[in-house]
Amino acid sequence: MITSELKIRVLYAHTDKMGVVYYGRYFEYYEAGRNEFLRRLGYPYSRIESQDIILPVIHAESNYFAPALYDDEIVLQTMLCDIPTVKIKIYYILKNSKGEKLAEGHTIHSFVNAITRKPMRPPSDFIEIVKSKMDSII
Amino acid sequence: MITSELKIRVLYAHTDKMGVVYYGRYFEYYEAGRNEFLRRLGYPYSRIESQDIILPVIHAESNYFAPALYDDEIVLQTMLCDIPTVKIKIYYILKNSKGEKLAEGHTIHSFVNAITRKPMRPPSDFIEIVKSKMDSII
Amino acid sequence: MITSELKIRVLYAHTDKMGVVYYGRYFEYYEAGRNEFLRRLGYPYSRIESQDIILPVIHAESNYFAPALYDDEIVLQTMLCDIPTVKIKIYYILKNSKGEKLAEGHTIHSFVNAITRKPMRPPSDFIEIVKSKMDSII
Amino acid sequence: MITSELKIRVLYAHTDKMGVVYYGRYFEYYEAGRNEFLRRLGYPYSRIESQDIILPVIHAESNYFAPALYDDEIVLQTMLCDIPTVKIKIYYILKNSKGEKLAEGHTIHSFVNAITRKPMRPPSDFIEIVKSKMDSII
Repeated sequence: MITSELKIRVLYAHTDKMGVVYYGRYFEYYEAGRNEFLRRLGYPYSRIESQDIILPVIHAESNYFAPALYDDEIVLQTMLCDIPTVKIKIYYILKNSKGEKLAEGHTIHSFVNAITRKPMRPPSDFIEIVKSKMDSII
Repeated sequence: MITSELKIRVLYAHTDKMGVVYYGRYFEYYEAGRNEFLRRLGYPYSRIESQDIILPVIHAESNYFAPALYDDEIVLQTMLCDIPTVKIKIYYILKNSKGEKLAEGHTIHSFVNAITRKPMRPPSDFIEIVKSKMDSII
Repeated sequence: MITSELKIRVLYAHTDKMGVVYYGRYFEYYEAGRNEFLRRLGYPYSRIESQDIILPVIHAESNYFAPALYDDEIVLQTMLCDIPTVKIKIYYILKNSKGEKLAEGHTIHSFVNAITRKPMRPPSDFIEIVKSKMDSII
Repeated sequence: MITSELKIRVLYAHTDKMGVVYYGRYFEYYEAGRNEFLRRLGYPYSRIESQDIILPVIHAESNYFAPALYDDEIVLQTMLCDIPTVKIKIYYILKNSKGEKLAEGHTIHSFVNAITRKPMRPPSDFIEIVKSKMDSII
């Protein structure tokens, strides 16, 4: 498993009239987590795109345990457990500043050729970096 | 099963630089679907809230099959298949204006007492309405 | 002046913890208003784009008078007062279902060649349609 | 003038199909800026709220000069120039990582009693802090 951590400040924009973060907003947090994960891995998403490869989401889900509250600095852990094939599965755990688990989720993405729109294998140097960083915190 | 349909115009605000609707935005579409579903059922969400009951999301997921495109008027089907208990599970199918399936998902909500924050059974008149409308398009 | 009207249902997604619509969300409402305005004018934005013309926003502003509330079906009036030159200015008035004014704003857009990124005059058939519909409700 | 700076990573969620940050999203950036501004001032917004005072936006505007691009780490300057009265006016300048100005805007907020909903003067200790930090970078 490779893990990275990102702190996120909860804004008014993220909350709804229940006084807590809106359930759909978590998927933006998850994007922020995987953006930072790939950057720290040394392979930012923009480098994937520069090879005419895109990573559309084909599945996304989240479980909600406790509300994320305004102005809290929440902590998002982003994790990769398996070597990607034509798909990559990324896990997320969100905790509040006291360490309580608020939500967890995962997304599955396809590696897709941006021009032909066909599924493809990930770049070999991406796989190498993933293998070299397995079992580390980045 | 009870089914309702809602048309949604895809705006610039919903799209991302891949030129298609952002994956997290579908969960706002799903909220629009269940808002309209409950209204047509004759039991709008505001009526639930007026009894100090809230319906926080405890699980949300979506599968993405094909991209939703700018300016298309997409069609969202919202469905209830089971009589709610302390939880309610709502299904969503999103199609483009040609009838092609773009995405499907579901959300699970708890009935929660807004004051004590404890899970509770749904109001009995809500269950009655659900039973009376089973197997209809609303 | 050309005026069009659009009804918008206020969702949880639009509100914040103050219990009212988040100030930034109004600019999505305004986009929904001008999207519909151009469609009813007979010149949808996608037709502008199909000529390799884009309309980036160069100025946006809004005044907020009273809060828009959850589940209300608010009414957005979108108005064009002046014949567009290299710029187009669009006005918005948002009222609640009781007719009380909640907000008003405007946006200014440039006509820009999508390839050269240079400012340009609007298509002549667009100007003709605007002139032919002046002083009408569309 | 009091100035603070915040770095923001541009995500897919912020962009639209034009490939740049959506015009309405800048107002979330501006909220992030003033949230951080108040925190660094030593008077976070949550401290204002804890005194049953809210700061609804009564005016917001933005000028857009150049597009903010995906994955760039943009820099948001948030500035207070005048001692607040019953209103507070906050300025924002957004630059890309090369220092080019992308946008500037401002918001005006009322100090409002959260219970009576009437306008009020800001807390005197807030004014004192503002005066003590004038002409500094926080």
